[in-house]
Amino acid sequence: MVCLSDKTQTEIHLIPRKLNPENHEFPMLSQTDWVTPEPLFYVRNHLNYPNVDLEKWTLSIEGFVNQELKLSYSDLLSMRQVELPMTLECSGNKRSYFHPQAEGEQWNTGAISHAIWSGVPLRDVLQLAGIASETVEVAFEGLDVGERPDLPGLFSYGRSLPVDKALHPDVLLATSMNGHPIPFKHGYPVRLLVPGWYGMASVKWLHRIVAMNRPFRGPFQVIDYVFVYTPDDPIRTPVSEMQINSAIAYPSDQEVLKHGTHLVHGVAWSGPHPATAVEISTDNGKTWTSAQFLDPVVPYSWRRFHFKWDTPCPGTYHLQVKATDALGHSQPYEARWNEKGYVNNSIQQITVHVK
Amino acid sequence: MVCLSDKTQTEIHLIPRKLNPENHEFPMLSQTDWVTPEPLFYVRNHLNYPNVDLEKWTLSIEGFVNQELKLSYSDLLSMRQVELPMTLECSGNKRSYFHPQAEGEQWNTGAISHAIWSGVPLRDVLQLAGIASETVEVAFEGLDVGERPDLPGLFSYGRSLPVDKALHPDVLLATSMNGHPIPFKHGYPVRLLVPGWYGMASVKWLHRIVAMNRPFRGPFQVIDYVFVYTPDDPIRTPVSEMQINSAIAYPSDQEVLKHGTHLVHGVAWSGPHPATAVEISTDNGKTWTSAQFLDPVVPYSWRRFHFKWDTPCPGTYHLQVKATDALGHSQPYEARWNEKGYVNNSIQQITVHVK
Repeated sequence: MVCLSDKTQTEIHLIPRKLNPENHEFPMLSQTDWVTPEPLFYVRNHLNYPNVDLEKWTLSIEGFVNQELKLSYSDLLSMRQVELPMTLECSGNKRSYFHPQAEGEQWNTGAISHAIWSGVPLRDVLQLAGIASETVEVAFEGLDVGERPDLPGLFSYGRSLPVDKALHPDVLLATSMNGHPIPFKHGYPVRLLVPGWYGMASVKWLHRIVAMNRPFRGPFQVIDYVFVYTPDDPIRTPVSEMQINSAIAYPSDQEVLKHGTHLVHGVAWSGPHPATAVEISTDNGKTWTSAQFLDPVVPYSWRRFHFKWDTPCPGTYHLQVKATDALGHSQPYEARWNEKGYVNNSIQQITVHVK
Repeated sequence: MVCLSDKTQTEIHLIPRKLNPENHEFPMLSQTDWVTPEPLFYVRNHLNYPNVDLEKWTLSIEGFVNQELKLSYSDLLSMRQVELPMTLECSGNKRSYFHPQAEGEQWNTGAISHAIWSGVPLRDVLQLAGIASETVEVAFEGLDVGERPDLPGLFSYGRSLPVDKALHPDVLLATSMNGHPIPFKHGYPVRLLVPGWYGMASVKWLHRIVAMNRPFRGPFQVIDYVFVYTPDDPIRTPVSEMQINSAIAYPSDQEVLKHGTHLVHGVAWSGPHPATAVEISTDNGKTWTSAQFLDPVVPYSWRRFHFKWDTPCPGTYHLQVKATDALGHSQPYEARWNEKGYVNNSIQQITVHVK
C-alpha cells in the first residue's frame, strides 16, 4: 500500500541571500526554540571558505607580548573551559528595511541566531603570553583569504578589539557550539566570540592573534563596519555594540488571519544591556501593551516573547513591536541611514488582514 | 587527518514564505538549468496536505457526461501518454513588488519553476466519458480539504475550466514529473496541468472531474484568483492566462560588483504566446540592448537569457529587464494593482554598486 499521509511535514531551511561566498539567513518565521536549530543558524561569509587541516592548524599569539605562543587544538582543549550562551547578529541584519536601500546583502530580520558556545577565555591566553604595556589593540585573523570588490589583491578576514575589550573575561576562544566541535561553516576549529558586539567581531577559523601598539587598519576594520552617513563623511565611527532590537516571527507581513485569537510571537535582544521589555501595538502605534517574555535574562542572549491577540473586527491592522533595554533605550521608529546599511534597529511593522 | 576543504559547497534550498500550509519559493538567485532541480521546485498550498492511499484512489469523471467513469492509477498509465515541458507560475508571483503591498504570501520572483511532465491528455478521458452538449465548464477537485480564513466550514481545493479549454489537446492529467511519478508535494498520483494558465488551475491530488451545465462557484474560483481593483468592484475578472514576464537571477538587488565583465542572466516566460525578446537596460531605462536567449522557443516553457555587461566607471547603476511576447506585448513599468496581488508582470529593476 502506498499511503502518503506521513510525508506532510513542512520543510524549513536557511534563506539564501548570496551564493558566492555563501550567505544565508535564519528563517525568522520558523522561530520557536531559544537555541537555533543548527541547520538554520545564519551563515555570513565575506570570503570563500578556507582549507582547514587540524594537524597543521595552530593558534599563534604574536606582537607586543612577553612570550609568543603557538597553541594546538589539544592545548586549547586542555585549558580552563567556559560556557557562553550568546546570540550572534550580523550588523547588516534588517538592512532591507532601510529607505533608500543600502548596498550589500538584503537581510530581513534573520541575520541572527543563538547557540550555547564553550571554549577558553581569551584573557587566559593573553595573560599566558603577557600583553606588553604598549598594546592598544589586539588583532584577530581568520584563515579565510580572498578578493574584495573594491580593492586589488587578496585579503584575510581580520578584525581588532581595543585591548580592554580583548581582556574582558567573557570574550571566548570557542571550540564548541551546542556541545560539540563548532561546525566547519561556523568557524571550526576555533572561533573568536565577542559577546555584546555585532557578529563581524567574532572571527571564524581563527589562527592568529596579534597584540598591536597602534590601531589595526585592515579593510574589514576601516572600510567595512563603519558608519558612513554621507559620501565624504570624514568621521567614520566603527560598528561595535549590539543595539536594542526585536523581530516578529508570527504572523508574517501581509498574512491573512482568521478572526479569533492569535499568538503573536518573536524575539528581542540587545548588546551588553539586555532587553527588559517588549511592547506590541496593534493600532499602528497609538496604544501599546506589554508582551510576555518566555525566557529569563541571560547575558548576551535573545529573549522570546509572545502576546495573545484577540483580533478585533475583520479589517487591516498594523502591528508594531518595540523592545527596551536595561538602560531604558527603546527601538526608534527610524534607524539612522548609513551607506553600508548597518544597525537597523527600527521598530518592525507588519500589516495583517483579519477576515 | 581532519581536512575540511571538501565541505565548502554553498547549500541552496527553497525559500519559506508560509509554514502552515507549506509555501516555499524557488531561490531565483540560483537559477541555472532549464529544468528546475526538484528540491527547488516551488511549493504552493492553500490547505494542509491530504492523505493519499493509492489503492483506494480513483479518478472519477461525473456530471454531464454520457458515461460516468472511475479510473484507477493503472488505468491511466495504460492510456496514451504525452510529454509536456511546462513552466508553472503562481499568479501571486512578484506580489511583494506591488505598492501598496497586497495581502497574501509575499513572493519575490521565485513562485515559478519548470519541469518535464507526462501523462494522459485530459481530452482523451473526457471523450471516453462523452461530454454532454449542456456542459459549459469542467470542474476539478483535489483531495486536499481544509479551512479558509474568510469562511466557516471546510473546503476542497476546486477549480474549473471553460469546456473549450478543458478539451484543448495540451491539457494533461499528469502522472510523471521529470521521468518519475510526481512527488507527493507536487500532486501525486495525478495533477491536472493547464499549460498557458497560472498555476492555480493545475489542481494537485486530482480525484474528481465534473462536467457542469453552469459555472463552478467554489471559493478558489470566485473569491480567490479574481482581479479586485476596488473593494466594491462588481466586475471580478478571473485570473487565467500567464502574461509576459521575466526575472533576473544574477546579480541580486543591491549587490556590490567588482569593475569588469559580468554575465547578467535570468529567465523570461509567458502563457500561450511565448517570450520572443528580452532587453536589458543598465541606465535606468534610457537605452535598451537585446539579451541572448539560451533556449529555443518550447511551448509553455520559460527561456533563459544572458547579457554580457562590461561595467562602466565605479558607481551605482539601475538594471532593468523587459521581455516581449510573440504578439508584441511587452512588460509594463507598472502592473495594475489589485487587492489580492495577482499577475505582477512589471519590469524588474535592480540596483548594483560597481566598485
